[in-house]
Amino acid sequence: MRIVDLIRKKRDAGELTREEIQFLVGGYTRGEVPDYQVSAWLMAVVLKGMTRAELAALTEAMLHSGQVLDLSTLPGKKVDKHSTGGVGDKTSLIIAPVVAATGLKVPMISGRGLGHTGGTLDKLESIPGFNVNLSLDEFRRVLAECGCALIGQTAEIAPADKSLYALRDVTGTVESPNLICASIMSKKLAEGIDALVLDVKTGSGAFMKRHEDAVHLAQLMVETGVRMGKRVVALITDMDQPLGRYVGNVLEVEECIYVLRGEVRNDLYELCLELSAWMFLLGERCNAIEAGKQLAAEMIASGRALDKFREIVRLQGGDPATVDDPRRLPRARNTRDVLSPATGYVTSIACEQIGVASCVLGGGREKKEDTIDPAVGLILHKKVGDRVTAGERICTIHYNSDARLDEARRLVELSYRIDPELPRRARPLVHGVIGGK
Amino acid sequence: MRIVDLIRKKRDAGELTREEIQFLVGGYTRGEVPDYQVSAWLMAVVLKGMTRAELAALTEAMLHSGQVLDLSTLPGKKVDKHSTGGVGDKTSLIIAPVVAATGLKVPMISGRGLGHTGGTLDKLESIPGFNVNLSLDEFRRVLAECGCALIGQTAEIAPADKSLYALRDVTGTVESPNLICASIMSKKLAEGIDALVLDVKTGSGAFMKRHEDAVHLAQLMVETGVRMGKRVVALITDMDQPLGRYVGNVLEVEECIYVLRGEVRNDLYELCLELSAWMFLLGERCNAIEAGKQLAAEMIASGRALDKFREIVRLQGGDPATVDDPRRLPRARNTRDVLSPATGYVTSIACEQIGVASCVLGGGREKKEDTIDPAVGLILHKKVGDRVTAGERICTIHYNSDARLDEARRLVELSYRIDPELPRRARPLVHGVIGGK
Repeated sequence: MRIVDLIRKKRDAGELTREEIQFLVGGYTRGEVPDYQVSAWLMAVVLKGMTRAELAALTEAMLHSGQVLDLSTLPGKKVDKHSTGGVGDKTSLIIAPVVAATGLKVPMISGRGLGHTGGTLDKLESIPGFNVNLSLDEFRRVLAECGCALIGQTAEIAPADKSLYALRDVTGTVESPNLICASIMSKKLAEGIDALVLDVKTGSGAFMKRHEDAVHLAQLMVETGVRMGKRVVALITDMDQPLGRYVGNVLEVEECIYVLRGEVRNDLYELCLELSAWMFLLGERCNAIEAGKQLAAEMIASGRALDKFREIVRLQGGDPATVDDPRRLPRARNTRDVLSPATGYVTSIACEQIGVASCVLGGGREKKEDTIDPAVGLILHKKVGDRVTAGERICTIHYNSDARLDEARRLVELSYRIDPELPRRARPLVHGVIGGK
Repeated sequence: MRIVDLIRKKRDAGELTREEIQFLVGGYTRGEVPDYQVSAWLMAVVLKGMTRAELAALTEAMLHSGQVLDLSTLPGKKVDKHSTGGVGDKTSLIIAPVVAATGLKVPMISGRGLGHTGGTLDKLESIPGFNVNLSLDEFRRVLAECGCALIGQTAEIAPADKSLYALRDVTGTVESPNLICASIMSKKLAEGIDALVLDVKTGSGAFMKRHEDAVHLAQLMVETGVRMGKRVVALITDMDQPLGRYVGNVLEVEECIYVLRGEVRNDLYELCLELSAWMFLLGERCNAIEAGKQLAAEMIASGRALDKFREIVRLQGGDPATVDDPRRLPRARNTRDVLSPATGYVTSIACEQIGVASCVLGGGREKKEDTIDPAVGLILHKKVGDRVTAGERICTIHYNSDARLDEARRLVELSYRIDPELPRRARPLVHGVIGGK
């Protein structure tokens, strides 16, 4: 078998066998196949696509390039959730304790902020002391003790994905549903889970701006997971405006605490109930989605979810006192209000620009090596459908650097669209469900 | 400017500017752009194509990656010919002396055998002592003295092409008309020529099996050359059976000597007259093709072309006595006749298989490092349209290794098709002419 022949086959829209894909990915992981051959193949995949069988083989090869956790000795179903990323998308911090509070296990390997979107690991690290770099042994111990644990990808998990992702990033081969699917699913399946709920975002703040692209990616991921023996469902959810009202690492942790306390029941709360309910369904904790949402709401109302969150923070080295007093979290030195230029209704918020504004303030990275400022971000006082009067506060910017304030403020101002009339039709929070039958 | 953005642009079928292409090729030649980015871009070019402006910019960037010869101090027009390669395709050895004998200059930078096809350099090196590795200074000196010189690509000529070709070879990005065009034209334009005649082969022994693919490549090359200020014409010529009757390095030199002596007037002779005539027309030695063919025929009939060939051989270190006595060239130890299995007419000869048979005998390379056996090859006694009787000799194999004879013989036997009737329509030698208006 020669790599060049496999590249040519894909270039000519042929289908590679499982053995051929294994040969390519295995060889690459062992350092035997050079980057320049893999990047040519990746570009051919981007432009010629893959069959479902090829995608399953690629995912499998990437999954088995490293360690696959075996959690079968732990009692209870292991269920995880993964989001394709958005702005203010902080559901993991709420869902993990909600679901673990019912006795299911949530082994969650998460990522960092990418582009204009936030990342679970960055949010968790804004809690003083919180350690996301647990070894797999420590991960397993925390999981056994409190039912959930949240860490970053370790060197043992899907190393092929790590190499391929770095290569894709510099060769214009990121934007491929097949490659995105294999990257996500190989990591998630390495967690040793029984079931997975995917939150595939669509809208102006998502990577998949168009509904049909989100549906396509969701279908690929569900089918790939099912082919590999897992129960998988994907929810297509709205990311046409930020989720919740807080954007930025510390601010998002704060909003999660308010939701876990039962003090806030906004779109973030609703989506967490929905996603938790699907996890309960796949994890056999309930028989219907409505019952699952009820169970999730009970975990919050009873305080059990908040207790679970405090426990995770403590077990992973964080300061549990912050959970009861979020003001102990790092704060930005300054705030600045953005005022409405007109009276009317908020009819849209350019969601990606809000994410970029948070990054500009220092809440995200331009380059991988950049450090982030956990305290900066935005609080949106008005969201789509809300009535505003001219001069009223629509957003508050939390910032530490005057130099960065102006650009962020300009972005926020440009993001809000205010019209005299309400939008005719509000976008739903959940656009659809793929799989799960 | 970031390379990854240029890759993405081409991936999305965008058009790169001259500056962007210069940035990419220049950076690659200087070792600043890594192979893995260039290979991803190459694959995007293969699958998404290039505009004519991009192709001209690529050719120009590759051309200027090295030295461009300035032959303006030499008197006379500088005219070259380039063939896309075939089996028994040995016209350069005849055309260079024919054209140089009229006072035009022929600065010819040639290649080696590729795949099943032969290469001018390998043929010349089968003449004892012939040195194709002249420095550019020596090349210029030979050219000034006798009007033509034949060498291989030096390190100074289009180094970007050398790097790109090596990368294309291992990344499945060879088969692209745009990349083939830029590779050929960047080298040819570096020769400091005024005009170029392209011999684009089509048929079972060519790289472009289909007529329309040959026409497309020819159009690209002609337009690229014209855009860069050269007079260029392309002839689409037949390669559905070997050209002439001799295949193999020494054997082909021998056939060229017979043609130059005026002893053989076959298809090889005819094509040499045709190509020379176009070189005369572009080089302003004649006003019409028929007059040019007449002039070429005179150069042969008068012995001036043979004198010129003897002179080149001597100036490049070869043994000039071989020109007058080809039996002094290396000979294979054994010969074996292949006999016709039937009585009738030869209706086709699978041309690529004849080329492969010559390679199998040792006349070509499987890997770049292989050395070739100059003496082996085939003499075809029968060509398409010829009448044969069962048991009559159709081909003689010249070989040095018994182990290789059987496979070569099997290939030759399979190549010949003999039918009771003549083919209804003979293929023309010249299928068409592109450019030259």
